[in-house]
Amino acid sequence: MKLPFSIDAQADSARLGQILTPHGQIDTPTFMPVGTVGSVKAVPQDVLEELDAQIILGNTYHLYLRPGHDLVRKLGGLHKFISWNRPMLTDSGGFQVFSLSKLSKVTEDGVTFRSHLDGSSHLFTPERSMEIQIALGADIIMAFDECTEFPADRSRSRSSMEMTLRWARRSKDYFEAHKSEVLWHEESGGRHQALLGIVQGGMYPDLRRESAERTVEMDFPAYAIGGLSVGEPREKTMEMIAAALEILPKDKPRYVMGVGYPDEIVKYASMGVDMMDCVIPTRVARHGLLLTSEGRVNIKNARYAQDQLPPDPKCGCKVCSRYTRAYLRHLFVSGEPLAGMLNTVHNLAFYLDTMRSLRHAIRLGDLSGLLTGYLSMT
Amino acid sequence: MKLPFSIDAQADSARLGQILTPHGQIDTPTFMPVGTVGSVKAVPQDVLEELDAQIILGNTYHLYLRPGHDLVRKLGGLHKFISWNRPMLTDSGGFQVFSLSKLSKVTEDGVTFRSHLDGSSHLFTPERSMEIQIALGADIIMAFDECTEFPADRSRSRSSMEMTLRWARRSKDYFEAHKSEVLWHEESGGRHQALLGIVQGGMYPDLRRESAERTVEMDFPAYAIGGLSVGEPREKTMEMIAAALEILPKDKPRYVMGVGYPDEIVKYASMGVDMMDCVIPTRVARHGLLLTSEGRVNIKNARYAQDQLPPDPKCGCKVCSRYTRAYLRHLFVSGEPLAGMLNTVHNLAFYLDTMRSLRHAIRLGDLSGLLTGYLSMT
Repeated sequence: MKLPFSIDAQADSARLGQILTPHGQIDTPTFMPVGTVGSVKAVPQDVLEELDAQIILGNTYHLYLRPGHDLVRKLGGLHKFISWNRPMLTDSGGFQVFSLSKLSKVTEDGVTFRSHLDGSSHLFTPERSMEIQIALGADIIMAFDECTEFPADRSRSRSSMEMTLRWARRSKDYFEAHKSEVLWHEESGGRHQALLGIVQGGMYPDLRRESAERTVEMDFPAYAIGGLSVGEPREKTMEMIAAALEILPKDKPRYVMGVGYPDEIVKYASMGVDMMDCVIPTRVARHGLLLTSEGRVNIKNARYAQDQLPPDPKCGCKVCSRYTRAYLRHLFVSGEPLAGMLNTVHNLAFYLDTMRSLRHAIRLGDLSGLLTGYLSMT
Repeated sequence: MKLPFSIDAQADSARLGQILTPHGQIDTPTFMPVGTVGSVKAVPQDVLEELDAQIILGNTYHLYLRPGHDLVRKLGGLHKFISWNRPMLTDSGGFQVFSLSKLSKVTEDGVTFRSHLDGSSHLFTPERSMEIQIALGADIIMAFDECTEFPADRSRSRSSMEMTLRWARRSKDYFEAHKSEVLWHEESGGRHQALLGIVQGGMYPDLRRESAERTVEMDFPAYAIGGLSVGEPREKTMEMIAAALEILPKDKPRYVMGVGYPDEIVKYASMGVDMMDCVIPTRVARHGLLLTSEGRVNIKNARYAQDQLPPDPKCGCKVCSRYTRAYLRHLFVSGEPLAGMLNTVHNLAFYLDTMRSLRHAIRLGDLSGLLTGYLSMT
């Protein structure tokens, strides 16, 4: 009961494939919209389905604090609670603990932190993260890791990486002992969640390789590369991804967490990354930034006040096929709630179209045109 | 080129009919969702179409200030600007000038006011309101009136009513001279907008009757009853509506502006009102109040935290058929933008279902069951 993954075509390092999860299939390379508290911000589930989002991500830290994993489990698990019957992934909570909460203390045991909502004190350990993620019941869950801060020197990066390795072991041990507790275990014919290991190692390629090797030794059904997009230059991001990909097995999905802009997505997919997630398309949309085939469109700009073109003239999404830049600008400057929703729907459409284009190009065996196109549009 | 109106069935005073506008037909009694600045807050146009909203309302005051009627006209008029090809109505701007702006001065000429957005000074006259509304190009537009404040004594109510009558005359004169300037005049085969007169008269039934008589003498294609829901008790509202309806011609549509809760809607329709509009379903939704067949559901209430029922178990809308109260509560308390949208879609569905039930009951000739049902649900 691992995470079945087939590769149908390759173009250099890029791979076209399918991942089979208990809630359905994911075509890779895939982009996963982020649904922090169980909602991809401003987009209803039926619109996500129309957009053909195949998998969405939930944040364990947020869902643990509100509404709470026990409640979600009681209400039938995350899929049922939010009415989303397609694949889901939850992160381990580690990243948000480091980025959002008032951190009190990291020990060998885990992380004590204070909620960003009410200041209450909580402890996340690898075991606790597994317990929460099993209760939420996403198809793919993540080992509890320490996201190494940036910058971090070599010694700090190594000790953080070693902690992540020990926590991965504990995550896996707890998961193996409890994996049959997921709510849908029986109705799915005995299937369970897939637990993924995470490569860390700061900005040191040799540490990244070592982290990858030692994580692979633990035998996860797929591997993530974490601790990137934390402030480092893009060349560094790419170098760290390349180092990890050297080691990670080619017959298992490889997931880069928390990236990126469209040109990054295309680049990393061309390097052989199969899964990515990022808040960029949803977050920047709510601030009025549209990502289009013509580059970035800051819709609040006065130049769009009389612009009767669609947000992206080459996009066929329901926003671009109906509304003008002038109207979207008016909605945004007027503070209308519809602005965030329409901008988000377009940005997600653009990301998911990008993934479809990527998969098509891989099938045709040549990503060079796509890479050039996306590099020029930033 | 008036406003064709046919009555197909009656149940006591209630009427089932159709209004034909240049952008399509409206089944009456009708409820018009309010799209203040050219957007029914938090609801995209395709969802309004799914809900079968037949006509929506725009606010002249808001659209004049932002994006400006000249810009809207330049971009093809309000229908095209917001991508809504069904009937629309704009109000005169009078009500918002009195309720939202920093009012400087009312004179015989008109109203000088300061924008609630930037404090800039503006003058609305009957002629200016017509000019703006012709530029916006809604199918139905309203005479510029003075919305009498509440409470107002008899003498003040009379003088305010007299002002509204003089302004109605000026509105009509300007409109008759300029009605062919509406953008779609030629493409619609020479049709033009319908200008409606407004009955005022404060809380005095005889003034209401006099206002109705003297407005009818000016011969408008339909009549509105304004200055209600301004703080008076509901019995007063009903009494004023009844007084005006005594006089208003039965063969023309009668429109009560700015009402109400569902039980009010049903009651006024039973009295013979054909058109209503109100911000209630959209505004209260954004504050977490759902209007349902079981009465009001304050979704933020802790009692709904584990409630797996739909918001309204008797409702077939896309929200009630997919999501639970527990999820909607979670979205609301988490401050998710989706909360406002889903709550609004349900509330509008409930209002528009109410109108369909009303029309069905009128066809069957008996509103008594509906009246009893709606009265008991508040």
